[in-house]
Amino acid sequence: MPFIRNAWQVAAFSSEISDAPLPRRLCNQDILFYRTSAGTAVAMEDLCPHRLVPLSLGCRRGDDIECGYHGLRFGPPGACTLIPGQDAIPAAAKVATFPLVERWGIAWIWLGAADLADTALIPELEWIGKPGWATGTGYLHFKAGHQLVTDNLLDLSHETYIHGNTIGNGHDQSIAQYPVHASIEGGRMVRAHREMPAIAPPPFFAMLLAHHGEVHEINRWQSAVFQPPGLNMTDVGVYPVGTPREGATMLRVMHLLTPETEESTHYFWAMARNSMVDNDALTHRANRQVDDTFNEDREILERQQANLRARPGRALPGLAVRVDAAPMQARRLYASVLTAEQADASVVVAPVRLATDQAPVALAAE
Amino acid sequence: MPFIRNAWQVAAFSSEISDAPLPRRLCNQDILFYRTSAGTAVAMEDLCPHRLVPLSLGCRRGDDIECGYHGLRFGPPGACTLIPGQDAIPAAAKVATFPLVERWGIAWIWLGAADLADTALIPELEWIGKPGWATGTGYLHFKAGHQLVTDNLLDLSHETYIHGNTIGNGHDQSIAQYPVHASIEGGRMVRAHREMPAIAPPPFFAMLLAHHGEVHEINRWQSAVFQPPGLNMTDVGVYPVGTPREGATMLRVMHLLTPETEESTHYFWAMARNSMVDNDALTHRANRQVDDTFNEDREILERQQANLRARPGRALPGLAVRVDAAPMQARRLYASVLTAEQADASVVVAPVRLATDQAPVALAAE
Amino acid sequence: MPFIRNAWQVAAFSSEISDAPLPRRLCNQDILFYRTSAGTAVAMEDLCPHRLVPLSLGCRRGDDIECGYHGLRFGPPGACTLIPGQDAIPAAAKVATFPLVERWGIAWIWLGAADLADTALIPELEWIGKPGWATGTGYLHFKAGHQLVTDNLLDLSHETYIHGNTIGNGHDQSIAQYPVHASIEGGRMVRAHREMPAIAPPPFFAMLLAHHGEVHEINRWQSAVFQPPGLNMTDVGVYPVGTPREGATMLRVMHLLTPETEESTHYFWAMARNSMVDNDALTHRANRQVDDTFNEDREILERQQANLRARPGRALPGLAVRVDAAPMQARRLYASVLTAEQADASVVVAPVRLATDQAPVALAAE
Repeated sequence: MPFIRNAWQVAAFSSEISDAPLPRRLCNQDILFYRTSAGTAVAMEDLCPHRLVPLSLGCRRGDDIECGYHGLRFGPPGACTLIPGQDAIPAAAKVATFPLVERWGIAWIWLGAADLADTALIPELEWIGKPGWATGTGYLHFKAGHQLVTDNLLDLSHETYIHGNTIGNGHDQSIAQYPVHASIEGGRMVRAHREMPAIAPPPFFAMLLAHHGEVHEINRWQSAVFQPPGLNMTDVGVYPVGTPREGATMLRVMHLLTPETEESTHYFWAMARNSMVDNDALTHRANRQVDDTFNEDREILERQQANLRARPGRALPGLAVRVDAAPMQARRLYASVLTAEQADASVVVAPVRLATDQAPVALAAE
Repeated sequence: MPFIRNAWQVAAFSSEISDAPLPRRLCNQDILFYRTSAGTAVAMEDLCPHRLVPLSLGCRRGDDIECGYHGLRFGPPGACTLIPGQDAIPAAAKVATFPLVERWGIAWIWLGAADLADTALIPELEWIGKPGWATGTGYLHFKAGHQLVTDNLLDLSHETYIHGNTIGNGHDQSIAQYPVHASIEGGRMVRAHREMPAIAPPPFFAMLLAHHGEVHEINRWQSAVFQPPGLNMTDVGVYPVGTPREGATMLRVMHLLTPETEESTHYFWAMARNSMVDNDALTHRANRQVDDTFNEDREILERQQANLRARPGRALPGLAVRVDAAPMQARRLYASVLTAEQADASVVVAPVRLATDQAPVALAAE
Repeated sequence: MPFIRNAWQVAAFSSEISDAPLPRRLCNQDILFYRTSAGTAVAMEDLCPHRLVPLSLGCRRGDDIECGYHGLRFGPPGACTLIPGQDAIPAAAKVATFPLVERWGIAWIWLGAADLADTALIPELEWIGKPGWATGTGYLHFKAGHQLVTDNLLDLSHETYIHGNTIGNGHDQSIAQYPVHASIEGGRMVRAHREMPAIAPPPFFAMLLAHHGEVHEINRWQSAVFQPPGLNMTDVGVYPVGTPREGATMLRVMHLLTPETEESTHYFWAMARNSMVDNDALTHRANRQVDDTFNEDREILERQQANLRARPGRALPGLAVRVDAAPMQARRLYASVLTAEQADASVVVAPVRLATDQAPVALAAE
């Protein structure tokens, strides 16, 4: 299946981009990222048109990239600026470049038609670095297609089975037993919402609620949202039973998925929380646990991808169960946006706000 | 080439099967093995029908297997017993299961039509654990097809060239120079029989005859038998020249081959001997040497398989030589059973006894 | 693309060939090399016709190779000389053998029609071991096709970008700025010649001119020649500005390329120099640096090959630049010899002398 291209997608964290070329394959295209002397981040095809070696083997000269083989140079607009040994530069001597914009500490790339790359279309991830919120970020590489990851994020009933050591409740309070409200908001965002009242706090949440002293019972919500092509957020709140919902410790976990290939995914994440925000040790511990948790997913999704590769005819889900409602809506939504874009290359779907700053309304399951 | 399926094949040693799921690919099918609380061994398709992850990533709950992703459970008959988050269980929610019976410390699986799985068809491997015999067992994984392994076992002339350090005689008494009697017994078992009178004892046999003191010259027989799909036995006897054949130290080496894929094989072995049976140190040493010896075969067969894969048109043997008589009979026998089964899915070929407890009759070569 | 076969190609250094079979894949053929008791080097198909295992797993018996599986033996002419277990040897029992001749410490193989294998066609590499010259040799395996390596050797403008630490001048005196004279001599040899007057000595050449004391400015020539199928030489001279060209320190670097497959190459090299020839420490240091230098090429060419494999339709060069003149002539020359050989299997192109003992004439760029 091809990829949606008319959208801003995450290419890298800003901190990854420096003078030295960073190679990364996105949606089957080899691209390099670097920063000019003025600090501007550039995205350029990572292939010298002369001898087809990766330009990322070279280095920056002035504000250009110099090929590490024969010294051809290409500037930020993609045109060749120097061919050693000759004065004339043929018009064909150029590489593709891509709109690249930095916001929220993230470099966003536009792989579709460049004239449609309106920065107003960059998703709002305002919790990253916002006062009153503590933020952590991380990157993982999954040898699994982006839709398998989104499936995973929109059906959190797996937490009981994969993440018992961090965010999952045990079998007696398995997440699946709390009904899920799956919906499509405005035709553009899938939401899977659960309320889990009066449960035991899983280890990760007990840690985040330490400022309440020892807590034996909490109310928890989790609202997973998705917008094509790869914007996922898990909006989670926990608060001790008997305390007001408005005082909940909230987590906004952004899972920003950019396909590498059909069967592998760049997984950028950012997590913001609104309690004990000055506690750096807690931030560090929480980030470590998130990384561990996502690696638990990675392990199972990579086995799933390998199984799918070995069984070409098989579609997912092989068996429709209730918890699949949101993942199936997400697949249909992705397909409809893709179909629209392929029918009319000027179609762009603007992202909608992922959440407000408040706790979400408790939605009843259907 | 497809595989014969209407037969009991070795899935695992009983000791390998426990509460924790054991995954194993047999004849291109992913299967998991586990033991219920009552100790019953179960063979179940290792693929959750919901999201196509291996069920073996999960664990046993009660007597069922719980998927490690979303917690679906499947009982020993294969039907789904629980889908977290819903009460109704669709009829399609099930996995394949396979008849599995334990005998001789081995779990035997039936991959063909289940209604034909008569336990009377399990081969007699009575020497395993029989009083008067000492037994060892082992497992190897060969990246070579099962027929290459059977070829190897039915033409033991290779012992001189591959196994000079253990069971092979040197060039001056190379095994090939002793004529082989190749036959098909009752249309169902291939036999390759050799008598090797008055030879020097190879190191392995010198070790087994230590109770005779130093021995300089022995008589040896070796009778290799094969029954489809993968039942091989090497019946070997050695005795000092001048002592009676009935007093021979006998080895019954069972090579139980189950295809993993067309190009890889599970090689289960069991070796029983009837002398110095209480000498555990000897048993241990002998097992180690058998393992070393089979690994010598593995090395050459894996290179052979790689060569065949790189030369798709080439058939074996590329050159018909006399020692190939029994391997060629075995390939024809396998093909005829397979053809019969494919023409009529109810065809089952019952195994015949591999040997009696006595030394085999000395057969003259043709 | 197929390979030119009617030519002597390097199979191995003589020092690599001993009693023990040496396996090597040349032009997609598995071949083994060994030396008879009389010291004659033999090239034989590395595949037993019986069971298709590599004969190189076996060993030499007398002057024959004995298969490590069933003991079949094949003599230097390729015919089977022994089949254990039988007296008759079928006529089909033989392996292919190839003309193999040792000269210049190198074993040359002829993979084409054997009756055309005239030893007068072996290239003259007289500087190897010649009095007045010091020689070093080495071998590298490149996961890149032979034409990519020849491209690299005929356009030395890359030295500035890849080899700055050894043989390349920096950007201010980049090699590409010195015009290249590209020509085809006698329709049979491509030459790319450069004169680089009054340049700073790169580290490698400063080392070779140590007998002149400290040298600040040198004149340098480099003449890269190529003859199909894989004979390359870089003829380099350096001498301090103000000293006569006839007194130049000369390097004759022979790059002898034999395809392993379409996408991998055996790279044999020999380097002869005519100054400080008794300085073994210098020879050792120079050899190390050459090895390092060629490994710098290897790294980039392997990435280039991988990129080409992933882009099946793309041809080289993707962009014609001036420095490609000689590489493009070489590709056309290779293709024309191949076409001629395929039209008439008796066509053989005799090699021409690579160089005389003198400094080459300074050729003006076109």
